[in-house]
Amino acid sequence: MAWNTNLRWRLPLTCLLLQVAMVVLFGVFVRYDPDADAHWMEEKGPGNLSSDLDNEFYYRYPSFQDVHVMIFVGFGFLMTFLQRYGYSSVGFNFLLAAFGIQWALLMQGWFHSFHDGYIFVGVENLINADFCVGSVCVAFGAILGKVSPVQLLIMTLFQVTLFSVNEFILLSLLGVKDAGGSMTIHTFGAYFGLTVTWTLYRPNLYQSKEREGPVYQSDLFAMIGTLFLWMYWPSFNSAVSNHGDAQHRAAINTYCSLAACVLTAVAMSSALQKKGKLDMVHIQNATLAGGVAVGTAAEMMLMPYGSLIVGFICGIVSTLGFVYLTAALWVL
Amino acid sequence: MAWNTNLRWRLPLTCLLLQVAMVVLFGVFVRYDPDADAHWMEEKGPGNLSSDLDNEFYYRYPSFQDVHVMIFVGFGFLMTFLQRYGYSSVGFNFLLAAFGIQWALLMQGWFHSFHDGYIFVGVENLINADFCVGSVCVAFGAILGKVSPVQLLIMTLFQVTLFSVNEFILLSLLGVKDAGGSMTIHTFGAYFGLTVTWTLYRPNLYQSKEREGPVYQSDLFAMIGTLFLWMYWPSFNSAVSNHGDAQHRAAINTYCSLAACVLTAVAMSSALQKKGKLDMVHIQNATLAGGVAVGTAAEMMLMPYGSLIVGFICGIVSTLGFVYLTAALWVL
Amino acid sequence: MAWNTNLRWRLPLTCLLLQVAMVVLFGVFVRYDPDADAHWMEEKGPGNLSSDLDNEFYYRYPSFQDVHVMIFVGFGFLMTFLQRYGYSSVGFNFLLAAFGIQWALLMQGWFHSFHDGYIFVGVENLINADFCVGSVCVAFGAILGKVSPVQLLIMTLFQVTLFSVNEFILLSLLGVKDAGGSMTIHTFGAYFGLTVTWTLYRPNLYQSKEREGPVYQSDLFAMIGTLFLWMYWPSFNSAVSNHGDAQHRAAINTYCSLAACVLTAVAMSSALQKKGKLDMVHIQNATLAGGVAVGTAAEMMLMPYGSLIVGFICGIVSTLGFVYLTAALWVL
Repeated sequence: MAWNTNLRWRLPLTCLLLQVAMVVLFGVFVRYDPDADAHWMEEKGPGNLSSDLDNEFYYRYPSFQDVHVMIFVGFGFLMTFLQRYGYSSVGFNFLLAAFGIQWALLMQGWFHSFHDGYIFVGVENLINADFCVGSVCVAFGAILGKVSPVQLLIMTLFQVTLFSVNEFILLSLLGVKDAGGSMTIHTFGAYFGLTVTWTLYRPNLYQSKEREGPVYQSDLFAMIGTLFLWMYWPSFNSAVSNHGDAQHRAAINTYCSLAACVLTAVAMSSALQKKGKLDMVHIQNATLAGGVAVGTAAEMMLMPYGSLIVGFICGIVSTLGFVYLTAALWVL
Repeated sequence: MAWNTNLRWRLPLTCLLLQVAMVVLFGVFVRYDPDADAHWMEEKGPGNLSSDLDNEFYYRYPSFQDVHVMIFVGFGFLMTFLQRYGYSSVGFNFLLAAFGIQWALLMQGWFHSFHDGYIFVGVENLINADFCVGSVCVAFGAILGKVSPVQLLIMTLFQVTLFSVNEFILLSLLGVKDAGGSMTIHTFGAYFGLTVTWTLYRPNLYQSKEREGPVYQSDLFAMIGTLFLWMYWPSFNSAVSNHGDAQHRAAINTYCSLAACVLTAVAMSSALQKKGKLDMVHIQNATLAGGVAVGTAAEMMLMPYGSLIVGFICGIVSTLGFVYLTAALWVL
Repeated sequence: MAWNTNLRWRLPLTCLLLQVAMVVLFGVFVRYDPDADAHWMEEKGPGNLSSDLDNEFYYRYPSFQDVHVMIFVGFGFLMTFLQRYGYSSVGFNFLLAAFGIQWALLMQGWFHSFHDGYIFVGVENLINADFCVGSVCVAFGAILGKVSPVQLLIMTLFQVTLFSVNEFILLSLLGVKDAGGSMTIHTFGAYFGLTVTWTLYRPNLYQSKEREGPVYQSDLFAMIGTLFLWMYWPSFNSAVSNHGDAQHRAAINTYCSLAACVLTAVAMSSALQKKGKLDMVHIQNATLAGGVAVGTAAEMMLMPYGSLIVGFICGIVSTLGFVYLTAALWVL
């Protein structure tokens, strides 16, 4: 986290500049969604309790907080098993996500919530911004320890922009069917491309490091990240689904897929390792893979056994892929 | 976590076999609950926002996620104060719970949600499956460090089965009055029997271990487990209560009982120890005891002071029991 | 945590005495809020699903659980970066908060929910009790390592009392306009006064300590506290807001302020330090400052850019204040 004295002003100036830009752009473009606006009740007619409950807030807010925990604690702690980078992992993730959600609110707003010259922001926008930043967090895992905070902020700026453009092209121009409520975009636009980077880079970082000493503690910290991602993934996949049965079904499907994924990942992990030990990194990969794989289709009538099959395959493929791609890279 | 090379294939094969069995059984038996089914809106008549809100999902999902955190982070980290077993504690707990919830969905489904040859699964089933696995997690605490992952999976298979049979006998055959919505079963069927095992076994494990070195860190990890159990216990006790005031009341009663429990457990703990130090294990026991004790009656008109009295007594009894039973075992 | 043998009975007796007093006072004064009372449905007319949803429980409970996590995990782990006091931090915070919420239910109840000789307790009271205890947790941070558990309990007794009296004077006697739903009181009554204490005291404690050794782990634990406070602050500021758009808006405003705060705090922190390293204590201060500053006005039509500006300024002022006040104290 230290750098050359000549570069000392780079981080402060970058942060301030970006934040000033955000303030100006928010001032020009961002307003409250009608559901969060004080004029809401007047528009909806005479206020009564049941119309208060119709507020999007009550449908989405609990899921939003779960997703928020996934981004900041889940992804933040996921990389703490890399002993030397534990603190950077959490701190830098915090910084890039705090900037990323602001920029994502703007970018996604321009493409999807732009009316009469304004972006109208409600709880669903907050969730989508968190989603977008999630893809940056995944990419961040691949380059942890190789980049400065300034580079991370710039990477976030570009990646959020590309993510939003890609989302716009797929959804609005190509008319891709995204049953899972913008899940298509996540899977294809972000994870599909990024997990490649992840798989390719992380092993080097991982194996080049001596993992002695308090590695035991580091693993426990990483388990905090893994578990919060795993536990809250049903909220992630159901957060922006349609109201009612769709949201309900997306949560059940994700729950099933994730459970199946754990067992097959453990099976593959212990079968492939000579020492017969469970490698937490495999569990982590499987966790993400299981949640992401069912994401696109989470809202569909996939049936619980369908979700189990998705999880079953994902746990195997993800662990196999990780082990053999790592081995291949190691030989080269 | 290492074992004989001859046994190397046992874990992978057990995991794969169990997961294939789950896929097949889910395929034959498990379907979505009407609230999670795409035909839901048609059956309920013309869709409108207020009928979306009637979906069980909005009544139960936030509580479900809290219970989910209790099972995976709460019970997972509870045992990390055992320095040598910290990582196993979290990892094995993850494995057994991921299998357990699938098997519990089936077993509890056959007994309670079985109609026309199918089990209909909704968010309430997910909560009940988590509850059932909670009892396995408690038992797991008693045998941590003495069993292999394969043995754990088999133990989970049997315990979930027995739990469900016991639940069926009490509720459906004997017609036991369970005001707390299946809390009776938990308390009597699972914890009553299992806390005995816990109390008897854990002390040995605990005291036979040298706790030097980074014990400080281990205690902090264990506090994560303890706190998430303590904080979310009101959700645990209210998660499957009746809608409205019953759910509200169950949360308040549990909140009161848990708060009282902490003070009396601290009092007993510091009174009984020569060193006058607070022993975290006492706090942990008291936490569980306070939540469990009020569980059966959480939904009743117990009155806030009634809950305080329950917590008061529990904190004392649980700490006394722990200290003297431990001492007795130590002499033998 | 050890003390003189003569003083050995002080903690047990104080705990038991306080808890007995709580039981008696709850028995005389505390009853369920109508929303949590079994007679609720009868009073509201024939039961139907939509009246169940009108229960305050469904508007407030998810936010309550988030606030609960902030008090026990957030504030508990915030101070764990002080290596020697890590375990005390979490444990003592647990003890004082468990007592504090009971006493706050009574004190705030007498002033605000007292009808016909009874205090009627519902989920909103639980949230307000947690808020009140939050101010004690902040003050606790200032004196950590200097006081015994007994002194902490007595401090809690006095501070909760003063907090409630101050709240009553501001709200009921002076008729202060508190748009943010009792946020005024928090900010002015508690944090405004207490952050002074915090800023003045903590530096000494902080710098007088050698932070070698497992400081890396301690920082990660402290990040758990910081992140849970930061992530759940939108729930804190919206928990007791009016239903519907007000609650929605309070969450959005807090989200924006917190995000902006992180960037300017990082900017200031790295600009002011010769080593150019990010100091987590600055981030922690900024976190709290950003959340508190927007608290009073969170419910108002502040506009997203208004919230960004609040966060922007807070991040700068809070970090500057911390660095220079610390330096000033260091010279003296």
